[in-house]
Amino acid sequence: MARPFNFSAGPAAMPSEVLQQAADEMLDWHGSGMSVMEMSHRGKEFGEIMESAQGDLRELLAIPENFHILFMQGGGLAENAIVPLNLSRGGPVDFVVTGSWSQKSIKEAARYAKATLAASNANSNHTTLPAPGSWQLSADAHYVHICSNETIHGIEFHELPDLKALGSNAPLVIDFSSHVASRTVDWSRVGLAFGGAQKNLGPAGLTLVVVRDDLLGHALPACPSAFDYKTVAANGSMYNTPPTFSIYMAGLTFQWLKRQTEGALSGVAAMEQRNIAKASLLYDFIDDSALYVNKVALDCRSRMNVPFFLRDEALNDAFLAGAKAAGLLQLKGHKSVGGMRASIYNAMPLEGVQALVNYMRDFEKTRA
Amino acid sequence: MARPFNFSAGPAAMPSEVLQQAADEMLDWHGSGMSVMEMSHRGKEFGEIMESAQGDLRELLAIPENFHILFMQGGGLAENAIVPLNLSRGGPVDFVVTGSWSQKSIKEAARYAKATLAASNANSNHTTLPAPGSWQLSADAHYVHICSNETIHGIEFHELPDLKALGSNAPLVIDFSSHVASRTVDWSRVGLAFGGAQKNLGPAGLTLVVVRDDLLGHALPACPSAFDYKTVAANGSMYNTPPTFSIYMAGLTFQWLKRQTEGALSGVAAMEQRNIAKASLLYDFIDDSALYVNKVALDCRSRMNVPFFLRDEALNDAFLAGAKAAGLLQLKGHKSVGGMRASIYNAMPLEGVQALVNYMRDFEKTRA
Repeated sequence: MARPFNFSAGPAAMPSEVLQQAADEMLDWHGSGMSVMEMSHRGKEFGEIMESAQGDLRELLAIPENFHILFMQGGGLAENAIVPLNLSRGGPVDFVVTGSWSQKSIKEAARYAKATLAASNANSNHTTLPAPGSWQLSADAHYVHICSNETIHGIEFHELPDLKALGSNAPLVIDFSSHVASRTVDWSRVGLAFGGAQKNLGPAGLTLVVVRDDLLGHALPACPSAFDYKTVAANGSMYNTPPTFSIYMAGLTFQWLKRQTEGALSGVAAMEQRNIAKASLLYDFIDDSALYVNKVALDCRSRMNVPFFLRDEALNDAFLAGAKAAGLLQLKGHKSVGGMRASIYNAMPLEGVQALVNYMRDFEKTRA
Repeated sequence: MARPFNFSAGPAAMPSEVLQQAADEMLDWHGSGMSVMEMSHRGKEFGEIMESAQGDLRELLAIPENFHILFMQGGGLAENAIVPLNLSRGGPVDFVVTGSWSQKSIKEAARYAKATLAASNANSNHTTLPAPGSWQLSADAHYVHICSNETIHGIEFHELPDLKALGSNAPLVIDFSSHVASRTVDWSRVGLAFGGAQKNLGPAGLTLVVVRDDLLGHALPACPSAFDYKTVAANGSMYNTPPTFSIYMAGLTFQWLKRQTEGALSGVAAMEQRNIAKASLLYDFIDDSALYVNKVALDCRSRMNVPFFLRDEALNDAFLAGAKAAGLLQLKGHKSVGGMRASIYNAMPLEGVQALVNYMRDFEKTRA
């Protein structure tokens, strides 16, 4: 039976192939007689799973050798503290606030460092991106933080800022939770990237940190050992027991990503093309319709999270009930902005977006 | 096909019924059209899973209403920092060090508070428990920490200390990672209990904290918001996205525990009887044998983790190879103590321990 299309913002849809493989291997991984959940993290079997996952991710995202791949716990909200605990040295750090997530980040960082607002899009109600040339960067910032895709407001940096070109030597920190692995990353512009796995990589409870080697070893005394990047890196993400099954699921997702192709492209490059096609299909339909509206500026619309509103909000409940009946799940917008949100991560096929557009068109015809 | 018996110290064996149910529901939980991994943690479906898990655990462990059940991340090693960040107020805290885990705990706590060694069993090489009457408790300690079951050294508190009877008003903190849900808990003697899930509750990546209400709200300024017990409690363990699938697996394990019976007993009480029988079978055999030896004092031998040695260590490799061939997995001892270790958590049936004893007897006969 075909599964419904699941537009959850996270934890989010996963590829059916990946879920099926996990179900098939649940009681016996590769003839080991054990579920992956039952393996010592120090054993040969899990060692293979860990090594494959890290190697595949490095290949998929073209992560240079001078970056460490860390599998941690606590999600983006914990990293909002863990990043300044590791990188700020208590000194000045700059934030570009473009929505709910970067707002949370600066608030938490201010507990550990002098956190300065370098730029904000509050005056547009989080529907634009402030041009990097306008950012007020501190001369001595220990890092500059952006949320490269704001899940709630549906805003995405389609090009990472080049801090060097802006006259800053600070490393760029990106919270890429909700668009990691949906597009290529220019690592020459990044010092550290972090993200919860539960949008595009795997189950909630796994946190990915990709950090440049020279940024390790500067943790504040208050940093818990289990969250000191240097300690985590030195122990191959096994200082504390890692979330082994979540790493396994992420690894299966990486293998699935490697198998994806679009024409001559494969892996993340193929996925990026597919994501562009999916997002264009949905945004074009919304822009052409009389009932639906997306308020985000054209140059920074997220390919992953598409918030939209019905011009007649009295129709919201009927829209959601009809969507569910049509096998289109979890479309309700975040409570802080209202309306609807379609999260169309890697695991959402083009057919799912097409089904959503078809439903939206039919709904508009019958109700408007 | 029967599965092998898995003696891993953690991540550890899980009940086959639980794994089978997870496999069956992997692509569609209760007709929702979603895997549990794919559900918004804010949605109705996961809300039901969370509520059942917490309710079942409260019932199983008879947790009083003035204790909060928190589902967190980071494992016991992260809690080694999170507990003093929340409870120490920077002041004196007492530790009873009885093995590797309490040793790690005092070391990490010393980074946040004045951590005092109240008692130690180092003089017996971690094979005894210092009598509570001999503990040197600080008059003004903000808590007293014990590891109620030392996974590596195989030492267990069979009765929790009564700090009030020792003249102390400090709350008792127990690290019960490796024996949680294997026996009843006298909550009148406990202020806070914590444990990683990966021994007796579910997959790695979930951390259980049970904390008395009056201990919330005293976090140090350096405590990350995501690890402030008050914040976690106020948000129903959903301040940050919880490890949803791990909570679901723990919930299935709790349901399995509730179904267990021994005579008129059920749940944890039944499990405790079964665990006593399992441990007795193994220890009695070891004590009667000429080849195997367990060095822990009789009054504090762990029911969960049974470290043992072959008197002829040259036989170690052959012992392990034969065990694996006989379907007895992950028996190698921790690298810090060597030898063997059989972890016989709740999910290990009596038949598994009997199979181990049979193998050990046969091995001794042919090799000794």
